[in-house]
Amino acid sequence: MTTIAIDVMGGDHGVTVTVPAALDTLKGHKNLNLVLVGDEKAIEEELKKAKVAVSSNLIIHHAPQVVGMDEPPAKALRGKRDSSMRLALDLVKEGKAAACVSAGNTGALMAMAHYVLKTLPGIDRPAIIGYLPTYDINKSVILLDLGANANSTAEDLYQFAVMGAVVASAHFNVEKPRVGLLNIGVEQIKGNELVKAASELLAKSEFFNYIGYVEGDSIFKGVADVVVCDGFVGNVALKAMEGVVHLIVHYAKTAFTRNIFSKIAALIAMPSLKYLKRQIEPAHRNGAGLVGLRGIVIKSHGWANRCSFANAIEEAILEVEKNVPQKIGEKVGKILGDNC
Amino acid sequence: MTTIAIDVMGGDHGVTVTVPAALDTLKGHKNLNLVLVGDEKAIEEELKKAKVAVSSNLIIHHAPQVVGMDEPPAKALRGKRDSSMRLALDLVKEGKAAACVSAGNTGALMAMAHYVLKTLPGIDRPAIIGYLPTYDINKSVILLDLGANANSTAEDLYQFAVMGAVVASAHFNVEKPRVGLLNIGVEQIKGNELVKAASELLAKSEFFNYIGYVEGDSIFKGVADVVVCDGFVGNVALKAMEGVVHLIVHYAKTAFTRNIFSKIAALIAMPSLKYLKRQIEPAHRNGAGLVGLRGIVIKSHGWANRCSFANAIEEAILEVEKNVPQKIGEKVGKILGDNC
Repeated sequence: MTTIAIDVMGGDHGVTVTVPAALDTLKGHKNLNLVLVGDEKAIEEELKKAKVAVSSNLIIHHAPQVVGMDEPPAKALRGKRDSSMRLALDLVKEGKAAACVSAGNTGALMAMAHYVLKTLPGIDRPAIIGYLPTYDINKSVILLDLGANANSTAEDLYQFAVMGAVVASAHFNVEKPRVGLLNIGVEQIKGNELVKAASELLAKSEFFNYIGYVEGDSIFKGVADVVVCDGFVGNVALKAMEGVVHLIVHYAKTAFTRNIFSKIAALIAMPSLKYLKRQIEPAHRNGAGLVGLRGIVIKSHGWANRCSFANAIEEAILEVEKNVPQKIGEKVGKILGDNC
Repeated sequence: MTTIAIDVMGGDHGVTVTVPAALDTLKGHKNLNLVLVGDEKAIEEELKKAKVAVSSNLIIHHAPQVVGMDEPPAKALRGKRDSSMRLALDLVKEGKAAACVSAGNTGALMAMAHYVLKTLPGIDRPAIIGYLPTYDINKSVILLDLGANANSTAEDLYQFAVMGAVVASAHFNVEKPRVGLLNIGVEQIKGNELVKAASELLAKSEFFNYIGYVEGDSIFKGVADVVVCDGFVGNVALKAMEGVVHLIVHYAKTAFTRNIFSKIAALIAMPSLKYLKRQIEPAHRNGAGLVGLRGIVIKSHGWANRCSFANAIEEAILEVEKNVPQKIGEKVGKILGDNC
C-alpha cells in the first residue's frame, strides 16, 4: 500500500479542486491510501457533494491553519505549524505517508519541506524541478533549479544534474537521460565561470549522457531530457516564459475582440484556440517536484484544475514506486564517493 | 547633416531589404546622408530596381567581404577586415559617419564594434540593449545586458543602468526613467549577491528613478522603462522568450491545420491572427543597440523586413540627434566621479 498526504487547502481553488482530484485518483489505484490534510468541515462538505465516505484508504487529517498563497516563507515556517501544508509534510517525516502533494505557496513549501525533511546524504541543497513543453506535444523536458537557490556552485549544478537525471529516468522511462547545461551559446568558450566549471564536472558522469551547452530557445527543441541551471537563472527564465505566454494571451484577446468581425472569427476559431490552449498548458505536465529531500514532495501549479491536480498526485505515486529519493541518494553517493 | 553608415549585407535578406529601407528613410529626412556599405554591384542593382541614382546624400562604399550570420566573432574579427560590417564601423571610428546600422551577426558586430570603437571613458564594458513589448502596445521596455558580457560585477550592472536610462530618456522622451533590477522576487532579501550589491548602488542614483526588483514576468507589465540584468541572465531570458514565441507559433500552426474545419477557421480568423502577429513583432520595436561605445551602433534583427530595418535606421538618427554616447559619458563621469 502507498500512502500519499495531500494538502487540500493549497492552490487557487482549494478543496473544490483538490478533493475531487483525490477521489478521481483513488478510483484508478487499488493499493493507494490518501490522507486529505486540511479543514475537516470543508473536506467533509466536498465528500458529501461527491457522495463518498471516509474509509480505510481515504482519511481526513484535520489542520486548523492555512498558508496563504502570498505569505512570506519565513513567516509561514514560524507561524503556521498547524497548517495543512506543514501537517502533510510532518506525515512524510513521520513515515506515515510516502509523499506529499501541495498546490500551495511554492516558497513556503520549499522552506517547510527543507526544514521538516532535511536534504539527502550527499545533497547540499534541494532544488525545484519543472516540466516544460517541447515541439513534440508528447514529450516534456525537465528544467532545474527553478529558484530554490539564488547562489549556486559548480558542485550544486552537478548535484542538480544527478537529481534531474534520476527523475527523468523515472518519468520518461529512459536509462541514460540526456542532460544539458543552460548557457548563452553552445561553443566551449561561451559562458560564465560557474557554467564552465560545472561543464567539466558533468562531462565526467557516466550515469547520464551529458550533451553539453543548451541555449534558452533550445530548451523546447527536445535536445535534452534535463536542462540544468542555477536557481537565479532558472527562475528568471521560467517567469519570463510565463510572462510571454500571458502577454500573447492578452494580445490574442485584443485581436479577437476588437470588432464584430473578429468576434465572429473567434467563435469559429474557438475549437482551434481551445486545442492550442490544451497544447500549451497540458495537464500531464503538472507536478513539479522539490528534489534532494529525504522524502517526496510534489508541487502542483496553483491554478491546477481537477484533472491536472490529479496528475500531480499520479506524479507522487510514480516517484514513490520508482523510489526517487533513494536513487538520488545512491547515485550521489556512488558518484561523489564518501559523502554519505 | 547627419551621416549614417549602413551595413547593407547583413541580415537574412541582405540588400533586398536594407537598400529599399535606406531609400525609404532618405525620403523622410532633409539633412541625412546614407553610406551604403557592401558589394557595389549588388547595391547598384537594387538602386537600379528602385530607379534611384547615387548622389551626394546616397553614397556607395564598396566592401569585398561579408560576415556570415553564424561566423564565430573571433574569426570575423581576424579575417573580415574588409567586410561591410567592419568598414561601416571604420567609418564611424574615422568620424565619416555618426552611426552605423547592421542586421548582421550580433556576436561579430559586438566584437568588431568593441575593437574598433572602444568603450566610453568611465564605462568598463559595453552592453547589448533590446526593446521588449509590454501590455500597452504603444510602450516598450528596455532590457540590458542581453549577452555582451557573461560575467558582470555590481559596478557593471550600475553602468548598464545608466546607459539604459540615457537611451530610455532619448527613446521614450522621459526625463527620469524608471529603472528596475531583474531578480527572482521583489522582497529586499531576495536574490544573489550580485543583485543585492547592485541594488545598493542603483538606489543611490539621482539621475534615474530606481524602482527596485522586477521579476521575469513583470518585465512586460510596464512597471519600468529599463530593466537591468547581467548578460548571462539577459541572454538566457531573451532566448527563452523567443523560444516560447516560436513554440506557440508552431502549436498554433498545428491547431489551425489539423483538419478541414480548422483550416477554414484559420482563413476566417486570418485578419485577427495577422493583427496579433503585428502586435507581437512590431516594426517600431526593431533596433537594439550596443551601448557604452565611443560611437553609435544599432543592431537590427536579422529577420527585419523593409519597414523594420528602416526603423533601425531611424533609431540611429534619433541617437545621433540625442547625442546618446556623449550623454552616457557625461552621466557616468558625473555619477562615478573622476573616472574620465
